[in-house]
Amino acid sequence: MNFRGMVRAPSVPALGLLALLSFLSSEPVQAGKVLVMPVDGSHWLSMKILVEELSLRGHEMVVLVPETSFLIRASANYTTKSFRVPYTIAELNANLDHIKKTAFEKPPQMTDIFVNLGNLMQFTNMQVKGCEGLLYDESLMKSLRETGFDVMLTDPFLPCGTILADSFSLPAIYFLRGIPCRLDESAAQCPSPPSFVPRFFTGYSDKMTFPQRARNTLMTIFEMFLCRKLFASADELASRYLQKDTTYKELLGHAAVWLLRYDFTFELPKPQMPNMVHIGGINCAKRGPLTKELEEFANGSGEHGFVVFTLGSMVSQLPEAKAREFFEAFRQIPQRVLWRYTGPVPENAPKNVKLMKWLPQNDLLGHPKVKAFITHGGSHGIYEGICNGVPMVMLPLFGDQGDNAQRLVARGVAEALSIFDVTAEKLLVALRKVLNDKSYKEKMSELSAIHRDRPIEPLDLAVFWTEFVMRHKGADHLRSAAHELNWIQYHSLDVIGFLILILVTVIFVIVKSCMFCFRKCFRKNQKKKKE
Amino acid sequence: MNFRGMVRAPSVPALGLLALLSFLSSEPVQAGKVLVMPVDGSHWLSMKILVEELSLRGHEMVVLVPETSFLIRASANYTTKSFRVPYTIAELNANLDHIKKTAFEKPPQMTDIFVNLGNLMQFTNMQVKGCEGLLYDESLMKSLRETGFDVMLTDPFLPCGTILADSFSLPAIYFLRGIPCRLDESAAQCPSPPSFVPRFFTGYSDKMTFPQRARNTLMTIFEMFLCRKLFASADELASRYLQKDTTYKELLGHAAVWLLRYDFTFELPKPQMPNMVHIGGINCAKRGPLTKELEEFANGSGEHGFVVFTLGSMVSQLPEAKAREFFEAFRQIPQRVLWRYTGPVPENAPKNVKLMKWLPQNDLLGHPKVKAFITHGGSHGIYEGICNGVPMVMLPLFGDQGDNAQRLVARGVAEALSIFDVTAEKLLVALRKVLNDKSYKEKMSELSAIHRDRPIEPLDLAVFWTEFVMRHKGADHLRSAAHELNWIQYHSLDVIGFLILILVTVIFVIVKSCMFCFRKCFRKNQKKKKE
Repeated sequence: MNFRGMVRAPSVPALGLLALLSFLSSEPVQAGKVLVMPVDGSHWLSMKILVEELSLRGHEMVVLVPETSFLIRASANYTTKSFRVPYTIAELNANLDHIKKTAFEKPPQMTDIFVNLGNLMQFTNMQVKGCEGLLYDESLMKSLRETGFDVMLTDPFLPCGTILADSFSLPAIYFLRGIPCRLDESAAQCPSPPSFVPRFFTGYSDKMTFPQRARNTLMTIFEMFLCRKLFASADELASRYLQKDTTYKELLGHAAVWLLRYDFTFELPKPQMPNMVHIGGINCAKRGPLTKELEEFANGSGEHGFVVFTLGSMVSQLPEAKAREFFEAFRQIPQRVLWRYTGPVPENAPKNVKLMKWLPQNDLLGHPKVKAFITHGGSHGIYEGICNGVPMVMLPLFGDQGDNAQRLVARGVAEALSIFDVTAEKLLVALRKVLNDKSYKEKMSELSAIHRDRPIEPLDLAVFWTEFVMRHKGADHLRSAAHELNWIQYHSLDVIGFLILILVTVIFVIVKSCMFCFRKCFRKNQKKKKE
Repeated sequence: MNFRGMVRAPSVPALGLLALLSFLSSEPVQAGKVLVMPVDGSHWLSMKILVEELSLRGHEMVVLVPETSFLIRASANYTTKSFRVPYTIAELNANLDHIKKTAFEKPPQMTDIFVNLGNLMQFTNMQVKGCEGLLYDESLMKSLRETGFDVMLTDPFLPCGTILADSFSLPAIYFLRGIPCRLDESAAQCPSPPSFVPRFFTGYSDKMTFPQRARNTLMTIFEMFLCRKLFASADELASRYLQKDTTYKELLGHAAVWLLRYDFTFELPKPQMPNMVHIGGINCAKRGPLTKELEEFANGSGEHGFVVFTLGSMVSQLPEAKAREFFEAFRQIPQRVLWRYTGPVPENAPKNVKLMKWLPQNDLLGHPKVKAFITHGGSHGIYEGICNGVPMVMLPLFGDQGDNAQRLVARGVAEALSIFDVTAEKLLVALRKVLNDKSYKEKMSELSAIHRDRPIEPLDLAVFWTEFVMRHKGADHLRSAAHELNWIQYHSLDVIGFLILILVTVIFVIVKSCMFCFRKCFRKNQKKKKE
């Protein structure tokens, strides 16, 4: 850019400063009642930020919590209502352990998609059973119904909130990164051409070769069957409980607003619908100070700085042999390492490594001395990396993490490794690249600057749309008429068939007429010849 | 909603108040250089608001103006650079008069689309010739090139700005309501399924019957030819001037950001691309006080209030007989009427009508005593009606106005009449409906409330994205990979063909194999029988 110089001009928000001040002093905000049906684990950690913010703004927040919950706890900021589920925390853990085992102990291969699917189906079915515990808890349901909520805020990764919203006739706000097999996009009637929108588990970018596009198209067809299978138990519960013939996808289609936890610094540009709002990076909104102990560790890392290493909220251990590889690699770098790890520690563990049960990930990534982030590639960690401009080494475990890693590697801000065959050597190569090759940090700083350059903060946007839906009892003006079309109508297959039929008929009639005329003429000529 | 009461809570913008205040006091805004290529007429009136705002924020604004301009004038807020065009204002007027005549004197019919197209083509070709005057003005081009602009802000209704942006290698920001035959959507690679996105000139809503969907699909095919014909002169000029084989559509595809002058209180919900930003209602941003004369006229209208009547910036006269019908209708209503009209006035003109050469439309529509708005249905007037919650009587003349009117009639906030056969009686029926049936006002107030309930003002949003593009030299992260696909690839027709080929081959092989086996068995049986 050719700048004439630095001129002080009012910022965009400043344009409305006077209006804002008068707004603050005069206009009261109406407090509503929000029913919240979260999904446990890291999903809850980002939704909690919105729940607490809405509570701060005077809204009554009621959060439904299964008895066996990993991370959803009571708080002074919101009311929790607990419901019984037909499984124990041990059973949940066993389910999770099985998923982890798949990642750690099997080489990545083509059939992973079926393994992933099987694991996911088992998890979803378990959670749908849990949902039954809530829906058929009559006294709890009665008390909820009588509360008279204004809106349902839910994570549609699991179907319970959606069924509840329909049962209570509440407008629903969906808070999500995405639903397996793109059920969110198809429910929202959002076009998603397979020619430039890669499907999950393919690891493709938006620039595909012909074979990749062909496989992506096949994956699209496969997804349709996948969805049906994956959410069969949800469809069954919805139809049974709501006493109408419906599917989870159909219920999802009634969404008022989709609050999507991504933006296009991470996700690839693709078509959107008017009721989709991007709140990627909402989990970076709140950054706290570090404890004295962590502050000292970080500051004491000197010029080399330090590395943060976590594998997400659900994975704090590694098979012993694998853990040893990590310790071995960390021994050979001059950086300090902060690692969330609760497994066995070898006797000669390197001194530059500090192990912790839990890490304040976002607070640490915001520290000026942080140099790299080793992560499994969950969307939360990724955004904390992007917000703070920290290049990454990624070890995707399951779900969307493989695709996530691919996206960041393609942007030149991360290196990816397979957790199955990671060795100290491989880790060192990747880590040294990210630490020493300046391009990773530069590209990440650029990406971070673009991500943070936005007209309104994601948390404010999420609050705005939740309140909008309460104020207007939905967001009907954003609802596409495509919801009234079936699959054939949506893609105009009936119209195309009809037009082809007309075209063929017209061609047929013309050809027949020509042939008729030709024969007539030909016969006449023959007759003449004979005569 | 079930409200617990009225609770004072901080507003969304207040959340960032401290951050904002510190931003104001510390962070300087870099001033850039913006080259502006506007389109004359009402198009300029809304773009001017953004140009002036950017100027206020310290940016250097250079506006390119053809010598024969209706409404683009010099200003202290921006520099204008004039260029010669090979037509006079009289020729421009003649062109416009021809368009008006078509509307006033011919009954609306199926073939209007060809008439509209012919008029539009004549206008576009004239303006493309005008553009040549600019592009081949070597000294002006040299001085512009040397200025070193950061961004091109242009209205792509006409192609000159786009060609210039490519020539100067500037990122382009498009400011528009839409381009004829949806060239904007196809250039942006935005999916636009004909099953629920009605085409221009059809007058359909987004809920179509089968025959309507079939016609809409045919219109889609027709549009492709239309586009080529309509912008043939632009394609030719672009290829010749830029010395490469290109089209206007291809150049448009390089857009950094599309600032779209609509939102979904007016437009029907449809798919969008990530670099599309909605700034509908930007023209309502600035409301000034009324002159003493107008204030007295408005306030003196008593309990019945007054009606505002304009047919847009380009039409201030009517054929005499038609004007008489309007005077006759106005005589019979108790409201006062403010009419932008410069034609002959009958001797016995009713006293409740005040004629003016120019109306401060948005200022008047914001007056508490305004009861209805008679308009031709241009998008600017429509938004001023929506912002201020004023129900309308619509008299579409040409272009998108027929479709615009249909959208508002469907929402129950307007009545539409044909200007060709309008009579005092018809006008009275429509006007009395809108004035006396409370539902029009109620629905319009609701629509207005939804339109004005937004997290950020459209003008601020337009300023933000212009500055974003300057800061980051474009908005590449929002650019879809679909731009690298041709039409066949985009719709996966090659992949579908390939998959069908494989399917057919597999079926063929299976059938042949079965037949082979069957024959073998059959023959064996026959042989055995013979033996």
